[in-house]
Amino acid sequence: MTVTLTIDCMGGDHGPSVTVPAAVRFVQSTDDVELVLVGQQEIINAQLAKLRATDHPRLSVVNASEVVAMDDSVETALRKKKDSSMRVALNLVKEARAQACVSAGNTGALMAVSRYVLKTLPGIERPAIATVLPNQKGGYTTMLDLGANVDCEPTHLLQFAEMGHALVAAVDGKERPSIGLLNIGEEVIKGNDVIKQAGELLRGSTLNFYGNVEGNDIYRGTTDIVVCDGFVGNVALKTSEGLAQMLGDMIREEFTRTWWTKVIATIALPILTRFKHRVDHRRYNGAALLGLRALVIKSHGSADAYSFEWAIKRGYDAVRNGVLDRLSRAMQENQTQLQDAKPVSAIPAL
Amino acid sequence: MTVTLTIDCMGGDHGPSVTVPAAVRFVQSTDDVELVLVGQQEIINAQLAKLRATDHPRLSVVNASEVVAMDDSVETALRKKKDSSMRVALNLVKEARAQACVSAGNTGALMAVSRYVLKTLPGIERPAIATVLPNQKGGYTTMLDLGANVDCEPTHLLQFAEMGHALVAAVDGKERPSIGLLNIGEEVIKGNDVIKQAGELLRGSTLNFYGNVEGNDIYRGTTDIVVCDGFVGNVALKTSEGLAQMLGDMIREEFTRTWWTKVIATIALPILTRFKHRVDHRRYNGAALLGLRALVIKSHGSADAYSFEWAIKRGYDAVRNGVLDRLSRAMQENQTQLQDAKPVSAIPAL
Repeated sequence: MTVTLTIDCMGGDHGPSVTVPAAVRFVQSTDDVELVLVGQQEIINAQLAKLRATDHPRLSVVNASEVVAMDDSVETALRKKKDSSMRVALNLVKEARAQACVSAGNTGALMAVSRYVLKTLPGIERPAIATVLPNQKGGYTTMLDLGANVDCEPTHLLQFAEMGHALVAAVDGKERPSIGLLNIGEEVIKGNDVIKQAGELLRGSTLNFYGNVEGNDIYRGTTDIVVCDGFVGNVALKTSEGLAQMLGDMIREEFTRTWWTKVIATIALPILTRFKHRVDHRRYNGAALLGLRALVIKSHGSADAYSFEWAIKRGYDAVRNGVLDRLSRAMQENQTQLQDAKPVSAIPAL
Repeated sequence: MTVTLTIDCMGGDHGPSVTVPAAVRFVQSTDDVELVLVGQQEIINAQLAKLRATDHPRLSVVNASEVVAMDDSVETALRKKKDSSMRVALNLVKEARAQACVSAGNTGALMAVSRYVLKTLPGIERPAIATVLPNQKGGYTTMLDLGANVDCEPTHLLQFAEMGHALVAAVDGKERPSIGLLNIGEEVIKGNDVIKQAGELLRGSTLNFYGNVEGNDIYRGTTDIVVCDGFVGNVALKTSEGLAQMLGDMIREEFTRTWWTKVIATIALPILTRFKHRVDHRRYNGAALLGLRALVIKSHGSADAYSFEWAIKRGYDAVRNGVLDRLSRAMQENQTQLQDAKPVSAIPAL
């Protein structure tokens, strides 16, 4: 089966100058994928011509006259720009002409338009944003939510855990990925009421719940999945970006301080390059909007072509591994279980 | 004026084998300080003898028979260990025999015993934990709260801002340090209700409020102070620790991969050492418990002697710079302002 993805070519800080080259490279390196490039046709075609890819058999262009700007409000994106590249790309997925959409557009707008166009899966109250982060074990940790939900109930955190489970089980083939609940201590008594109740729910679920984890466990790789509300997740992610940036700049400063340190930097270049590659955040680009009736991948707004290509790859992998099917089934089973369990439920006051 | 500090010598993962050498080094390098070493006298004296510092004129030992263990509950620390080194060290501060206490004991216990023994300053509902983190501007960012308060009201965040202001103004001599409110976006409409209301209060205050900041701004040094609730602050701090640890380990791995990379590491040693020194978290050890009627400095539990010495230095600097006076005055002025303002207060529903 060929995987078909729509690409919102106008989204992100750089638009088609990044998204089109990334799409061309991806389609050239992957045989069983078709990409539908959505946006202002002339600009996209100009980019394709520059890359001598106008006639690629697995690339097509669909016109959309409007663009959701990075600072457009959710209202503007939703009500006033009905022919935006973002909206048209999502509509194509809704009409089953593609299986997933990849966009570097602004997060709030993308989530709102996705919810409006695609709707949520039965049983999901709140879609969540999930991403992967590298860890010390040499693998990666899947973390959600990263900013879609700033106020969460315990049941939402349980649903995030279920969605994270379905994602990791499908993409990594791990049958029972372990789940940690992000908290400020490992002990059960730690945290606020929402966290404590979410812990109760998770302990009572069929999921492979490890228990509470702390911020450092994300990078330690203590669990496959780390669950948190969107406020905390967003702060943790952006704090990490800031720290990584500062440390990278400091290493650069130290290695370029004098002519002698520059000589050493040249000698050490293969080592520094290897290190840089290992921690290159661009390889972790592409967060999944989970809980919708179709797959949507959100790229970092500032992504370059290399980074955006990784986001496309993540969409491709998710479709290839049947993430959506797995997610829908998990939610259905879960609802059945909940209905069965209701008369004897021992969970207090939820 | 000599600064007198009490040292809880039994706290932390390593107890007197770390705290006593740190105290001896600090007292030897600083002329106008007296340190009172509190804990099991025999063990402390044995350490002092080993360091040939038994007769140092500015070191004294006060016996305390009990020890608050790192995993003791708040209840145990508070009710069952009335002769703990932590409690005795705080009592000495209360009796004005010292101006501040430094402890590496467990955070929950230290906060609870400090509150019980010292009481909070008038006008302070919740003490907070503040620390400094290095930033890209070459200075540092003061951040609070880091875990004392997991659920905060908007007024608590305002008080944290006031306390952070008093701390930074006193220690750094900045008259109007800038304050950022940690959020998931810069726009005023972002965040949950508590954050939005706290933003309103800060905009209406006399503080130098910059506006919302995001996680990466902590390390960018966008503002002098970053204010957040203890849950978010703790996660941000521990996530940073985890990431720094992972990156440090990865650099080490790359430089020790083969005999050739080891040769390069030897040549690059001065550069790597300089970098390591710049980001050495031990130099940022020593968080201030703010909002109490005396100063308490909390060291990382796993601190080594070098790191614990920094925590002692932080206590010394805080006393030397009159942090407590500044804090009390700010709170008094604030209360007067609040009382004056009450009849015409335009702040809704707080």
